[in-house]
Amino acid sequence: MEKKTNFGVIGLGGRGCGNLREFLDIPGVRVAAVCDKYEDRAQQGVKIVEEKTGEAPEMYLDYKELLKREDIEAILCFTTWITHARIATDSMRAGKHVAIEVGGAASIEECWQMVRASEESGKFCMLLENCCYDRNEMALFHMVKQGMFGEVVHLEGGYRHDLREEITSGRENRHGRLFNFMHRNGELYPTHQLGPICKLIGVNRGNRMLTLCSMTSKSRGLNVYLRDTKGADYDITEYPFNQGDVTTTMIRCANGETITLHHDCSLPRPYSRNYVIEGTRGIFQENSHGGEYFLDTMGEKGREPQFYPFAEDIEKFEHPLWKKYQVDGVHGGHGGMDFLVMSAFVDSVVHHHQPPIDVYDTAAWMAVTCLSEQSAAMGGMPVPIPDFTNGMWIDREPYHRGIFCLEEVCMDYFEEEKQ
Amino acid sequence: MEKKTNFGVIGLGGRGCGNLREFLDIPGVRVAAVCDKYEDRAQQGVKIVEEKTGEAPEMYLDYKELLKREDIEAILCFTTWITHARIATDSMRAGKHVAIEVGGAASIEECWQMVRASEESGKFCMLLENCCYDRNEMALFHMVKQGMFGEVVHLEGGYRHDLREEITSGRENRHGRLFNFMHRNGELYPTHQLGPICKLIGVNRGNRMLTLCSMTSKSRGLNVYLRDTKGADYDITEYPFNQGDVTTTMIRCANGETITLHHDCSLPRPYSRNYVIEGTRGIFQENSHGGEYFLDTMGEKGREPQFYPFAEDIEKFEHPLWKKYQVDGVHGGHGGMDFLVMSAFVDSVVHHHQPPIDVYDTAAWMAVTCLSEQSAAMGGMPVPIPDFTNGMWIDREPYHRGIFCLEEVCMDYFEEEKQ
Repeated sequence: MEKKTNFGVIGLGGRGCGNLREFLDIPGVRVAAVCDKYEDRAQQGVKIVEEKTGEAPEMYLDYKELLKREDIEAILCFTTWITHARIATDSMRAGKHVAIEVGGAASIEECWQMVRASEESGKFCMLLENCCYDRNEMALFHMVKQGMFGEVVHLEGGYRHDLREEITSGRENRHGRLFNFMHRNGELYPTHQLGPICKLIGVNRGNRMLTLCSMTSKSRGLNVYLRDTKGADYDITEYPFNQGDVTTTMIRCANGETITLHHDCSLPRPYSRNYVIEGTRGIFQENSHGGEYFLDTMGEKGREPQFYPFAEDIEKFEHPLWKKYQVDGVHGGHGGMDFLVMSAFVDSVVHHHQPPIDVYDTAAWMAVTCLSEQSAAMGGMPVPIPDFTNGMWIDREPYHRGIFCLEEVCMDYFEEEKQ
Repeated sequence: MEKKTNFGVIGLGGRGCGNLREFLDIPGVRVAAVCDKYEDRAQQGVKIVEEKTGEAPEMYLDYKELLKREDIEAILCFTTWITHARIATDSMRAGKHVAIEVGGAASIEECWQMVRASEESGKFCMLLENCCYDRNEMALFHMVKQGMFGEVVHLEGGYRHDLREEITSGRENRHGRLFNFMHRNGELYPTHQLGPICKLIGVNRGNRMLTLCSMTSKSRGLNVYLRDTKGADYDITEYPFNQGDVTTTMIRCANGETITLHHDCSLPRPYSRNYVIEGTRGIFQENSHGGEYFLDTMGEKGREPQFYPFAEDIEKFEHPLWKKYQVDGVHGGHGGMDFLVMSAFVDSVVHHHQPPIDVYDTAAWMAVTCLSEQSAAMGGMPVPIPDFTNGMWIDREPYHRGIFCLEEVCMDYFEEEKQ
């Protein structure tokens, strides 16, 4: 019988349950324990595992109790944004690798705590940034690493998603976004596009983010929505939400790249991650049909450059991991990327190597949230982004050559496989 | 015979000659004098006027001589960016209304000089921001003023145009961009989208721009292009251009709107002004097919919002001026907007009323350039944007109800006409 590795899963709201279902499909995993502070959610987790595997996991309401289990090698944490860092730190201190759902940090100190816990325990912490494994993002990564865009100089991304219903129903559905929108004001959810961007330009490996400036718009969207849908008498209809409808953030990197991010979740709009890559030899920009691109090799003399649909050409640029994934069968939510990012975590746990997104990446990407709040509060003042590697970024090598690697050299894996 | 008004035209490079040709098609204008510091260009201006009207204008090499002409009522200035403000100031001081081609300011002081010259002379200064009169921009203006986007909270725009050939040929074609890219670093050309944006949200009339932050990327595009096209031995191939390839600027307004601008002219890319309007009831974003939009009235319950092609629906939202223009016959360059913006200027000169884009608009929009340079040089530090109205913006009424008006109330003009 196949040897299985024991995992514990903490946080079983909507997203946690969805992830748990997919996680159980990854070969070699056994969910030995589930935990949620709400008993009904924890029970739901037990039920999912039992239904899918025939074996009931232990149920916990206090994650610190779960962390005492010596048979558990690694933790997946799908709790609210502001509990990710502390659960990650506690997990590593308890001798377990940990993967956490995305979200921003509440303070720089909690980012340092994760870094110190990882360095001192030898355990790793991986942000489950699924968008790093999206088909588009990986094809673009592949193209950039092959030099097709030349030297990359500017990038844009965003989390532009009409979440008014989810946010305003935060008390009924126990979703943490509501309280964040009530009390905070900044780039609350930076990593969906920042993660892929950082991987593209080698952040923490020969590059790093140096400073950022943020500015936030007025806050109007949620109140208008509440008036329309819940009426004037609903108790939070006139709540003075702190979170501006749109937060803009500019980031400057050590190698001179700039990144523009937009956080935009409380206005009526179609979904977009607003990905833009601009280099000396080409451009990609997301649009509502997946994206469009132009490379200088596609230009004709005397003719204005024009965009070409990316979806029509993506097969030409497919990342080797996605070629393999399509043959094996694309699996699960968000177009398959959730399954891939959790598989990457399992691969690292099982093979005892560092994960493709490590604690330095996790800390740097998450830190953008609290830094953005501070910059915005100071009218857009530039604020320094800490170097969580303490200088190691300057000559840091890629970690490993595994199939889920997000570093340049990892293309070799597939080259070797071909031969 | 129709009474004609005498104009002088200064600056007859490529753009000046193109504008001159169209200007001569506007009823009631007579170009009595042309001027360029290069004699061949001035002669070219004479030739154009003579060919189109049968009457040769006086030719000048020194614009100050031209400004002495008492029979000339107004000036059009199509010179290099850094000479616009001083020629505008001198023109008003010489008792003439003036219109200037777009471009950014070199200093805040030269913006104040324009404002003071206008206030003291009673003459006006109008930035010829043609994009304010673009068909798309006017339809969107019309929609916003009808409340279709709800309350506008965030806007984006850009000047994203591959000008590598034009910039690097700056010495041969005597185009000023080259020297700007050599020596400056910031948002060099903000007004194409900022102008329409400011009109949309009532800047200088109940609103104003308060602060901005700018960040610039590394500069790589021009050197790569020069190596490719002119070779390693060309004298400026390795010139260390100051201008970063992409400048990002965030602006915050008194009424809480944020504006993101991108200046992006030295990388291979299709043209875009990158227009985005986001309000509490809808969104528009430019794309390579004109644009796409979503209004909350278009949503279906339980279905993710999606974008609809704007080009297919634009007739429903057509601005009254454009309805009339299409009946009368769309005329001239850049899809007809050049003709409209110059017609707006002529209309104000002939009818002795303030222009739709006045000296306060001109100063505020142009000021973004030098402020952006300073902010970028300080790492993105927020810098204050002067209030060129000295407080008048707080309760300033729209100027007039003419057909070219860019204010809210001017819709009345067309309403009355209908009856």
